[in-house]
Amino acid sequence: MSRLLFRRLPARAVLRARPMPSARTYASASPATQFNWEDPLWSKNLLTEEELAISETAERYCQEQLLPRVLQAYRDEHYDPKILEEMGEMGLLGATIDGYGCAGVSTVASALITRAVERVDSGYRSSMSVQSSLAMGAIHDFGTAELKEKYLPAMAKGKLIGAFGLTEPNHGSDPGSMETVAREHPQKKGYYLLTGSKTWITNSPIADVLVVWAKLQDTGKIRGFLVDRKQCPAGTLETPAIKNKTGLRASITGMIHLEDCPVPKENMFPVVEGLKGPFTCLNSARYGIALGVMGALEDCIDRARTYALERKQFKGNPLAKYQLIQKKLADAATDAAYGTLAAIQVGRLKDEGKATPEMISMIKRQNCDRALHNARVLQEIFGGNAVSDEYMIGRHVANLYVTQTYEGQSDIHSLILGRAITGIQAFV
Amino acid sequence: MSRLLFRRLPARAVLRARPMPSARTYASASPATQFNWEDPLWSKNLLTEEELAISETAERYCQEQLLPRVLQAYRDEHYDPKILEEMGEMGLLGATIDGYGCAGVSTVASALITRAVERVDSGYRSSMSVQSSLAMGAIHDFGTAELKEKYLPAMAKGKLIGAFGLTEPNHGSDPGSMETVAREHPQKKGYYLLTGSKTWITNSPIADVLVVWAKLQDTGKIRGFLVDRKQCPAGTLETPAIKNKTGLRASITGMIHLEDCPVPKENMFPVVEGLKGPFTCLNSARYGIALGVMGALEDCIDRARTYALERKQFKGNPLAKYQLIQKKLADAATDAAYGTLAAIQVGRLKDEGKATPEMISMIKRQNCDRALHNARVLQEIFGGNAVSDEYMIGRHVANLYVTQTYEGQSDIHSLILGRAITGIQAFV
Amino acid sequence: MSRLLFRRLPARAVLRARPMPSARTYASASPATQFNWEDPLWSKNLLTEEELAISETAERYCQEQLLPRVLQAYRDEHYDPKILEEMGEMGLLGATIDGYGCAGVSTVASALITRAVERVDSGYRSSMSVQSSLAMGAIHDFGTAELKEKYLPAMAKGKLIGAFGLTEPNHGSDPGSMETVAREHPQKKGYYLLTGSKTWITNSPIADVLVVWAKLQDTGKIRGFLVDRKQCPAGTLETPAIKNKTGLRASITGMIHLEDCPVPKENMFPVVEGLKGPFTCLNSARYGIALGVMGALEDCIDRARTYALERKQFKGNPLAKYQLIQKKLADAATDAAYGTLAAIQVGRLKDEGKATPEMISMIKRQNCDRALHNARVLQEIFGGNAVSDEYMIGRHVANLYVTQTYEGQSDIHSLILGRAITGIQAFV
Amino acid sequence: MSRLLFRRLPARAVLRARPMPSARTYASASPATQFNWEDPLWSKNLLTEEELAISETAERYCQEQLLPRVLQAYRDEHYDPKILEEMGEMGLLGATIDGYGCAGVSTVASALITRAVERVDSGYRSSMSVQSSLAMGAIHDFGTAELKEKYLPAMAKGKLIGAFGLTEPNHGSDPGSMETVAREHPQKKGYYLLTGSKTWITNSPIADVLVVWAKLQDTGKIRGFLVDRKQCPAGTLETPAIKNKTGLRASITGMIHLEDCPVPKENMFPVVEGLKGPFTCLNSARYGIALGVMGALEDCIDRARTYALERKQFKGNPLAKYQLIQKKLADAATDAAYGTLAAIQVGRLKDEGKATPEMISMIKRQNCDRALHNARVLQEIFGGNAVSDEYMIGRHVANLYVTQTYEGQSDIHSLILGRAITGIQAFV
Repeated sequence: MSRLLFRRLPARAVLRARPMPSARTYASASPATQFNWEDPLWSKNLLTEEELAISETAERYCQEQLLPRVLQAYRDEHYDPKILEEMGEMGLLGATIDGYGCAGVSTVASALITRAVERVDSGYRSSMSVQSSLAMGAIHDFGTAELKEKYLPAMAKGKLIGAFGLTEPNHGSDPGSMETVAREHPQKKGYYLLTGSKTWITNSPIADVLVVWAKLQDTGKIRGFLVDRKQCPAGTLETPAIKNKTGLRASITGMIHLEDCPVPKENMFPVVEGLKGPFTCLNSARYGIALGVMGALEDCIDRARTYALERKQFKGNPLAKYQLIQKKLADAATDAAYGTLAAIQVGRLKDEGKATPEMISMIKRQNCDRALHNARVLQEIFGGNAVSDEYMIGRHVANLYVTQTYEGQSDIHSLILGRAITGIQAFV
Repeated sequence: MSRLLFRRLPARAVLRARPMPSARTYASASPATQFNWEDPLWSKNLLTEEELAISETAERYCQEQLLPRVLQAYRDEHYDPKILEEMGEMGLLGATIDGYGCAGVSTVASALITRAVERVDSGYRSSMSVQSSLAMGAIHDFGTAELKEKYLPAMAKGKLIGAFGLTEPNHGSDPGSMETVAREHPQKKGYYLLTGSKTWITNSPIADVLVVWAKLQDTGKIRGFLVDRKQCPAGTLETPAIKNKTGLRASITGMIHLEDCPVPKENMFPVVEGLKGPFTCLNSARYGIALGVMGALEDCIDRARTYALERKQFKGNPLAKYQLIQKKLADAATDAAYGTLAAIQVGRLKDEGKATPEMISMIKRQNCDRALHNARVLQEIFGGNAVSDEYMIGRHVANLYVTQTYEGQSDIHSLILGRAITGIQAFV
Repeated sequence: MSRLLFRRLPARAVLRARPMPSARTYASASPATQFNWEDPLWSKNLLTEEELAISETAERYCQEQLLPRVLQAYRDEHYDPKILEEMGEMGLLGATIDGYGCAGVSTVASALITRAVERVDSGYRSSMSVQSSLAMGAIHDFGTAELKEKYLPAMAKGKLIGAFGLTEPNHGSDPGSMETVAREHPQKKGYYLLTGSKTWITNSPIADVLVVWAKLQDTGKIRGFLVDRKQCPAGTLETPAIKNKTGLRASITGMIHLEDCPVPKENMFPVVEGLKGPFTCLNSARYGIALGVMGALEDCIDRARTYALERKQFKGNPLAKYQLIQKKLADAATDAAYGTLAAIQVGRLKDEGKATPEMISMIKRQNCDRALHNARVLQEIFGGNAVSDEYMIGRHVANLYVTQTYEGQSDIHSLILGRAITGIQAFV
Repeated sequence: MSRLLFRRLPARAVLRARPMPSARTYASASPATQFNWEDPLWSKNLLTEEELAISETAERYCQEQLLPRVLQAYRDEHYDPKILEEMGEMGLLGATIDGYGCAGVSTVASALITRAVERVDSGYRSSMSVQSSLAMGAIHDFGTAELKEKYLPAMAKGKLIGAFGLTEPNHGSDPGSMETVAREHPQKKGYYLLTGSKTWITNSPIADVLVVWAKLQDTGKIRGFLVDRKQCPAGTLETPAIKNKTGLRASITGMIHLEDCPVPKENMFPVVEGLKGPFTCLNSARYGIALGVMGALEDCIDRARTYALERKQFKGNPLAKYQLIQKKLADAATDAAYGTLAAIQVGRLKDEGKATPEMISMIKRQNCDRALHNARVLQEIFGGNAVSDEYMIGRHVANLYVTQTYEGQSDIHSLILGRAITGIQAFV
């Protein structure tokens, strides 16, 4: 098990002595002879002791530290960067990376962390995913030894915040048409000048380190650059926030405007070229989303079930007694159980080097689609009361719409799968 | 045609000289040989000249006067009571009522007004529906001649704002179990004392006139009371707003707390007893919702279509060229066309005295369900961009969830229909 | 009202004295104050007295004469051509045609007949639709005066059976690519030689008169030919039946193989060229399908409701008491009511010359899709018993799949609508 | 690995030399770097070598020996009892039983066999499931040592055919209300007399050994009896076939009528009492269905994909190029992959003694629902051609409806799950 996560266990042990806000004990296995609605197909049976412990630790942190803050943060559209520091302190960032102060845990363990965070809020999970899978992942997979040494340790601690600039205003589903360009600095040798705009970039307004993908002007090939905000002259890098979002309001999202922003050549990732670079990172992030959204869905199930048991209508019957209500719960629990198993399977294959991008397309698409669909259906159980944000389900519904669209909108993943199944592309 | 609406036509005629913000001309009939995506099954062919003119007038007002304000109002969760005054000035309030300064138009004409308002925002429409169908409707249908004379003219002008208190915190789908009670004033003869709480009451925080349904303590029968805020001693009526709503944020919603609030006996509706009173009002309001939500859906279609034509992805093709996009538009247009025809049919029957409550359950449920479903599917066309509230579709999606739940949640209407079809009730 | 239909009323009057097999009275209007599950939105209010009478007459014939035969016919995959004669005798064939012994009724009246037939079986309706809308319709709309005089009267009586050959083995959704060709007879002046194959042709094995669409060899333009089986030399026309069908087994379907089949020039439709000809006929047939399938759906509702009321499970409760059952019935009744109103609206527009093909695409697609979907859901009410064909619902389910695919498969109609909405075609 | 299955491998080896009818090699693992549409999430990675070999053997037998017969058998509604003998010869019957000539393989291995059979036809699989899980399973789990020795070896060879009588005409979803009764023989000591009717009993018309569940007259407790047809006096046991089925026509189904049928006391299962007995057997059968239906779905995917690649429409494009087609394939492949993983997971838990009945309810329900839904959607790809039974997809669609209803109709399993999730039953 990760030394980092263990190292902190004494601190957690104290917390364990305190009563949990909910009666749930996240990692305890259900007894053999009893159905456990929180883990209907007993996915925990597939996890290692270490993974169970990591999951438990992450769940406790999220329920105790994140949950109390999220409602106000979402209302105010405010993201507190301290959260990344806390996560760093817990060893939750870049958790699959070995070395550089990272935990070096399995792909599944890492995704159990994202699930714990997303059980609270998809926005918090997005911020963490960008830091871990996209920014740290890109540096780790493609950066030089110097870049890794320089940036990863501080990013692992949450002291440096990362962002990942791929999507452009005119090129969402089709990043290969990007317009951001890098040209050699006409005067200053050893430098590129980056010009272009990226949008819907999680963390960008507060990021210290921005991984930006751009086309080399002379070759037209896409390359990755590490843009260090401290090194950017005034006026060459702007990262305005996008406000008034309809979802993920507890995370911060913005644009990246680069105007002849000088970046030293050693900050260009040395080997990777074309879309392989960003797609490798997206692959890891998408994997985390696939298990992450199951956390949001499970929270919806938990809240809807509790509401249905407590809310009485018509002769004092709890809503939970009505067939139409029970079917909604059964459907949602089934999709949560299936999605969890599929994500664990692909995580295992990923660690064995056997997972293909299409597998990740499949689980990212299906799990986001089903999480969103079921969250909406469960919301119906609350009737008009769901309009109050304090019931906490409207926020999940709004967030999950976003997860369905980012890192490959659902229909785009259909076509990726369709191409893999038929051998024919249908994008155009 | 309504004198009121005509009376104002000179003013509107000026407006007509100005270019419309959109190229749509809402009431112009499509030529015989051409398909019109805005009215695929040519419902306009079923409308009278007067109805077409009323619709056009209402649409212009809404697009020109309401649309520019709604985005900020929704963000700020702010409702401007001036809107009801404007609507009153236009003759849009209580439009089916004959006399008392009301327009006296057909049921369908009145619903064309709600559709025009809901094309902008379901919250604005909710506020108007409560004023017109619930508050004014209750007074008109059940009040004494004195109450009608006293309140309806000012309410028709939007000078007095109405609310309708039926739903209670513990009794949403089952109002028959209400706990609010009216008892004879022990000292002050000719007065009742009302005590109880109502919740999710549109307009309540700003209402001057609150229709409140309560059980008479001695008989246990439900009766309706007109509570005039001006007449309530301090501390007997509180109407706190419910903030941080996840939808309908451009309307104002609140609670009604009554504590021994004295109401003169002449403010009790004289004859109607039991749930017949509130259900009659709800029936009219639900009818308006059924056509109203078609306005929200049509706006989603319009915006999604425009976006799909303008947004290019993959070799410069507009999204509108992709089969998966076209199917979403075709599905939505079909549901909008069908829902509109069904609502017109029931409106005609209503004016002929042939509409049953179950018919209205059917169209309220189906049109709300389909509007919500299609709005969500159309939102997918915007991909991540829908997260920006400026694309205006996320707001409709959030609003339409609420319309599905209020005035009879969708499943409840299923059971009303199921009972009508089978003769067996399945509520408990 | 049609003289023909009235002329036969004495005979029907006798039948009326007999008790109906079902308690339903198809054309009786529901009282104003009561919900009628068989016509939830009171579509009958939109029909003329004549239309109501035609509907009633057709329903009686179908329930009394067709219903008792259909189960065995479906099992044996046997179509009795006498049925067309009976329908001719009743005045049901080519009912919208004025003259030639046809009834000359409204488009809606004609579709009420198809609905009555399809309430029994979609196969019976298909056979009638092909006779009326496709074969007789083509001759009436495009044939010379001589062809009309020669063929229509006998076809109206069901003495001559028609077929309509458009679809080819390799060209289903894309008839414009047809390969059947007509070339001038090299020896016999005044004759064309037709060569090619058509498939999935209702009635073809028993047809006397086959309308065949073929490309003129010299121009490549599609033209229509009336192939009279009696005039075809041996070996030039083969019409083998397609057996072992998975649906529409009570109708007969086959191929048309033409090999240098000589057809006199006067049997070529004189003016119409290109796909306009067949599409005009399909438009009428599709219209009939749109209301026709509502008959099948209504029969499913009727049977499922009866079963749910009679079948007891769990402490003697009828299935109809369960919420999950009631919701299925409510959904189906809603779609039947909406689809009926939409079809009536388009029928009225058609008679006014205002219906566009896209309108008919919309109602054909939506009504077939919803009929099929709901029939499947209603089938679930029967549980395992639906596996017995005697419950009559499995047959509807199997038939309705076919109606969804023929005369424009559902997805193709989506793209027709998508093109109409966006102005962009997405077929290729 | 099972000795039986290995013992027969030489014979199979010969078969292997022959070319497979399809190019598929069912058990070969996909290479690490490539997506395999036949096993998208690489479930084979979870199987043992033995399981892979069993699966391969079963698939070959089914594709080579069963597939060529099924079309005609389904048309003729004919079941050839030789098939059970062949399966017995292959060691496929009662495969999880250890001893008595059975293979003694894992639960998952056994379900891989059912999947192989159901890839050809759900009816063939039903017949095998009844023989293995229900009849042999009941005898093995609850019979005396003598009964096991006497019947299991011949049943394992397919020489004796078994049936399982639980469902009654008036008690489908609620077997606890059964009316079949067993009373002590008034004259013949040591015998019970069984009276009652069972229906929808697979294999009953040809069964030699019928496990029948009946209530003991004196205690009212449900007990299991082994009825040996050879021992039944004339007129005491009738097993008429139910003909004209709308699905599962390649299996034989019937009733069991018992009229004072004498059964020796030693044929009553000694210990098990109440519904525990039949439900234990159903649990195993349901498990087999859950993976079995994935075989039918995978066959639909395979056939639809092939059709879509070969069928050209609109400028020579294969259907597979169209987005609407690709989405159908992607959806189906996803559900097949997810359902397979879930079934494997529960199979493993079952062998570990950790599977609860609710888990099996979940996978039985979900996999049947999704198999049916996707089969229907894939059928649309064939358009009208699916009406020909030779395309083989209509049969799967018809069959899968039945699997959704038997051994717990889908809605009943929803309520079982709802009860497990909420702790409240909603059956009545």
